[in-house]
Amino acid sequence: MTHKIAVIGGTGPQGRGLAYRLAMAGHTVTIGSRDAARAAEKSAEIAAKIGGAATIGGAENSVAAATSDVVLLAVPWDGHAALVTSLASELRGKTVISCVNPLGFDQDGPYGLTLQESAAEEAQRIVPDAAVVGSFHHVAALSLWKNEGPLSHEDILVCGDNPQAKDLVMDLAAAVTGKRGIDAGALRLARQLEPLTAVLININKNYKTRSGLAITGVGGHA
Amino acid sequence: MTHKIAVIGGTGPQGRGLAYRLAMAGHTVTIGSRDAARAAEKSAEIAAKIGGAATIGGAENSVAAATSDVVLLAVPWDGHAALVTSLASELRGKTVISCVNPLGFDQDGPYGLTLQESAAEEAQRIVPDAAVVGSFHHVAALSLWKNEGPLSHEDILVCGDNPQAKDLVMDLAAAVTGKRGIDAGALRLARQLEPLTAVLININKNYKTRSGLAITGVGGHA
Repeated sequence: MTHKIAVIGGTGPQGRGLAYRLAMAGHTVTIGSRDAARAAEKSAEIAAKIGGAATIGGAENSVAAATSDVVLLAVPWDGHAALVTSLASELRGKTVISCVNPLGFDQDGPYGLTLQESAAEEAQRIVPDAAVVGSFHHVAALSLWKNEGPLSHEDILVCGDNPQAKDLVMDLAAAVTGKRGIDAGALRLARQLEPLTAVLININKNYKTRSGLAITGVGGHA
Repeated sequence: MTHKIAVIGGTGPQGRGLAYRLAMAGHTVTIGSRDAARAAEKSAEIAAKIGGAATIGGAENSVAAATSDVVLLAVPWDGHAALVTSLASELRGKTVISCVNPLGFDQDGPYGLTLQESAAEEAQRIVPDAAVVGSFHHVAALSLWKNEGPLSHEDILVCGDNPQAKDLVMDLAAAVTGKRGIDAGALRLARQLEPLTAVLININKNYKTRSGLAITGVGGHA
């Protein structure tokens, strides 16, 4: 089943990488940006990389969200609450995927911010009528963009409180890994998934690599 | 290189599993417990499972810590600060490994507690002269105890601020996985490693499995 998916923040590296994979899998993707012209440029870049069959366009954030049934938030943590608030009416009733990572950076590298709620929970609190799902935090932006073929050695973890929305996102994960995502539990588990990205960035630095996450012992989730 | 390792909380499932793997790898292991008789019983159970060559014994916690050069804290989060405080003089100057998971449980399952510092950082604060390393949070107790052979499909993440101690623990990881552990960054990253166990427990429940963690993209850490 294909979906109409807005990628808010689709001009950033993570958004671009996910938009590319989702469009390549046959979904109709709209890159969202504050600047409609930048969104159009980025969508043209992705369309060119995919080739003829891609259905991908660009629009201002609220237009992208309004014209899609699934909205992926791929925005920085800084300004997150204000952005979600500004899109509240467009997000209502929709499946909203958050891959937002509330991280801090200093001379010792990245670390997870200590928060009372995750970014995903914050979005859910601001838009109670949306079905927010946390996912796609751990796939490296450059692996999405540069690797050929599915990232079949990685797993996509999915958390959420709405079973239908979670199920939809677990299916969407196949656009990235070629297999269904893994049910990681309730939305509050996003408190664990989001800052874990700091660990992966540290590993990337220590090993000069693009690391990813795999869960062992979970067979048959393809 | 083999070490003299105390496993504080070695009568619990995680401690027992790690003590078993460490003793099987040739390290001299002392199971620690508040109750020396229970520690002796548990060490006899592990020795019997390993067979003739195991060097493993049991002792009261402070005796176990005092007679070892590496101390693994495999204790519950509840009571953690009091226990570390009670062992402060024995831990001074040693490599202290924390696999403590500060989790909460309710009708919706396990979740990571929102804390200002991780258990590993708390231990480091209480015993500033120890070299605390966070590791071994994510290997399932029953996989340690029941699986045959090394858990070579899993990775052991290691965080810490003392390079020598971290290096030692990365080597120790081979007792569990057959390969060197992965440097996950500074000790504060334990804030991310510890509660991640809640995600794995949720996955275990959802998929009726014993899940584990693997990091993709990090070759050559064997």
